[in-house]
Amino acid sequence: MTGWRVTRLHHVAVADGDDHTGEALFASLLGDPVHSEQGDGFTERMYAAGGPFLQTLEATGDGVVRRFLDKRGPGLHHIAFAVDRLDAALTDLDERGVPLIDRTARPGGMGTRIAFLHPSAADGVLIELVEDGGAADG
Amino acid sequence: MTGWRVTRLHHVAVADGDDHTGEALFASLLGDPVHSEQGDGFTERMYAAGGPFLQTLEATGDGVVRRFLDKRGPGLHHIAFAVDRLDAALTDLDERGVPLIDRTARPGGMGTRIAFLHPSAADGVLIELVEDGGAADG
Repeated sequence: MTGWRVTRLHHVAVADGDDHTGEALFASLLGDPVHSEQGDGFTERMYAAGGPFLQTLEATGDGVVRRFLDKRGPGLHHIAFAVDRLDAALTDLDERGVPLIDRTARPGGMGTRIAFLHPSAADGVLIELVEDGGAADG
Repeated sequence: MTGWRVTRLHHVAVADGDDHTGEALFASLLGDPVHSEQGDGFTERMYAAGGPFLQTLEATGDGVVRRFLDKRGPGLHHIAFAVDRLDAALTDLDERGVPLIDRTARPGGMGTRIAFLHPSAADGVLIELVEDGGAADG
């Protein structure tokens, strides 16, 4: 790595099925969501899990979450790592040939900046990188 | 809940594909594994991720990991929450009708005791509960 590092696992995201068994169980295990936000065709909810968050993604219209549900059904969707310097990370990963979905950062939930790597970078696992001010630490 | 609680996200597990792109990327993001252990037909490796672990599962023979890879391909496999009292958790969840794979605890990696909920409990997400001495905290 050059000039950046992963600081921690930031969240794990679940695509919520239409029967909402996931939402119900996660609330019973972790308590009510600590944050909720509208995305483009989905609602994301963040449950505190001792430092990292468990994130649920509920489809509210057409978009990436609905397409994922239609294709693969509900289940684990992606994992997100916090990094200290996202722009440096993207430049470095791109130079190393790691396939990226986002070559430049874009706005994420809770005021963060985010970018996704392509799932082919890691055994089909969709990985998000998140840069925030550190306020999400447990 | 009755007499037990989730204390934190313990790990996120990835079923490693035969080309090992996941292992390579996780090592570049998180450093070398901090623990490695043989399971029944698989090798598990734990990468430190700022408190929780990223776990990779590599099939080494027949078993649950190979069957998962044959059926679904590589990708996110399960998430594990640490609990303070696993036996109490299993009794309580069973009484509440939450579908369980393991109704009693069994030995897990790194000297832990573990049990899995059935994926139908939470939108198809396979959830493991882990009880340890707290030494895994970052």
